[in-house]
Amino acid sequence: MTDPRISIVNERMKGIHKIVAVSSGKGGVGKSLIASTLALILANKGYKVGLFDLDFTSPSTHIILGIEGITPKEEKGIVPPEAHGLKYLSITYYSRDHASPLRGADVSNALIELLSVTKWGNLDCLVLDMPPGIGDATLDLIRLVKGIEFLIVTTPSQLAFETVRKLAILLKALKIPIIGIVENMKMNDGRTIRRQTENLGLNFLGEIPFDPRVEESIGNTNKLLTTAMAENAKAIVSAIWSNSPPNGGA
Amino acid sequence: MTDPRISIVNERMKGIHKIVAVSSGKGGVGKSLIASTLALILANKGYKVGLFDLDFTSPSTHIILGIEGITPKEEKGIVPPEAHGLKYLSITYYSRDHASPLRGADVSNALIELLSVTKWGNLDCLVLDMPPGIGDATLDLIRLVKGIEFLIVTTPSQLAFETVRKLAILLKALKIPIIGIVENMKMNDGRTIRRQTENLGLNFLGEIPFDPRVEESIGNTNKLLTTAMAENAKAIVSAIWSNSPPNGGA
Repeated sequence: MTDPRISIVNERMKGIHKIVAVSSGKGGVGKSLIASTLALILANKGYKVGLFDLDFTSPSTHIILGIEGITPKEEKGIVPPEAHGLKYLSITYYSRDHASPLRGADVSNALIELLSVTKWGNLDCLVLDMPPGIGDATLDLIRLVKGIEFLIVTTPSQLAFETVRKLAILLKALKIPIIGIVENMKMNDGRTIRRQTENLGLNFLGEIPFDPRVEESIGNTNKLLTTAMAENAKAIVSAIWSNSPPNGGA
Repeated sequence: MTDPRISIVNERMKGIHKIVAVSSGKGGVGKSLIASTLALILANKGYKVGLFDLDFTSPSTHIILGIEGITPKEEKGIVPPEAHGLKYLSITYYSRDHASPLRGADVSNALIELLSVTKWGNLDCLVLDMPPGIGDATLDLIRLVKGIEFLIVTTPSQLAFETVRKLAILLKALKIPIIGIVENMKMNDGRTIRRQTENLGLNFLGEIPFDPRVEESIGNTNKLLTTAMAENAKAIVSAIWSNSPPNGGA
């Protein structure tokens, strides 16, 4: 028997052309920063973009984007508010930004409920800021959201890449498309991650240098878009889009 | 009714003088490196030390310590093997180092099973490398392991500290002792984390500078102990021990 929620979720998401799940093997690699920056860059190009922060382990896109004082509307479902030209929704609106020691099953149910009731309308691209690694929530999202594609962020650290390897092997086994791997916070010109990515049979989408200005830019999107991180992210957006551009937009 | 496993786990762990759970609000802050380094420093001082890697989200202490080719013995329970003067056990021995998409409840059951059957014997200190954040496993460990004390690792990033704040508030609400907070990967002399830690009413245990040599030292404990990271970790060990030194050892 098929889970009836699959058809509900996909009915809600049918107006979305492309769903990019920004993920990582472990936390602390800059996943949320890159998800936020990619969404901003696409919106600035004139695409209709949504950003959905599903990282219940440490929701942070609202801090990165400096989003305050907006809340989703309830109109026979949830209508995401707009901020910086994006339709924006975060799990933090529902965990109220305090410690929420939800059990795994509760987290999954909350995510599925949110996916079932959120009205994104027509979007060229929905960027999902995923929980890091392979947990209940990631497994449920893979199962429920048709057409989801993964963009995986790592750092140059072997410890980070070992966790990416596990995630990539799982996604391949489940036949989930992987757009490619981004190497973030580079401090030298090593090519190990590029080579290891290619050995896994995956696309290496590009490198983003470590940029101390990023920390100062948290909460200020204009400043964020002037960082070396954002400049490099623009090239990565082009790489992602070259194979499968959104329909609408500019 | 009390969970019967609580008494089993505590019977198994009764020979351990001090249980230090090295935790973080999010991944990627250096938690596993600091847990491994603290355990090595204590063992080098002559204490009887165990290191238990419970971070099923990205087990990495075996990579950091370069531990290969040793396996736990089964003798009416699990006997942790020795490596680098430590009694060492990792969840990775039981997930076989490949992608393990266990559901939250399964992870919890596996951790509890491991705690129930592992024979640590007498230890001055057991260092737990915890999963980051507040998940099922952390909640179960808090519930099951009497006398557990938390050492929380953060980076200077506000994004990391916001997740620490949530963890600290939860631990305080549950009346779990917090030894203090360590600020890792410092790149400048900012005092924001120190101030925010003190505002939470917690001990600021010290700063560890970002040290690019750490990445090169992964898998080589002798080299690891010569890094600036390890030098600073020694001062933190003294700070931890000054209030409650282990009984045995040097």
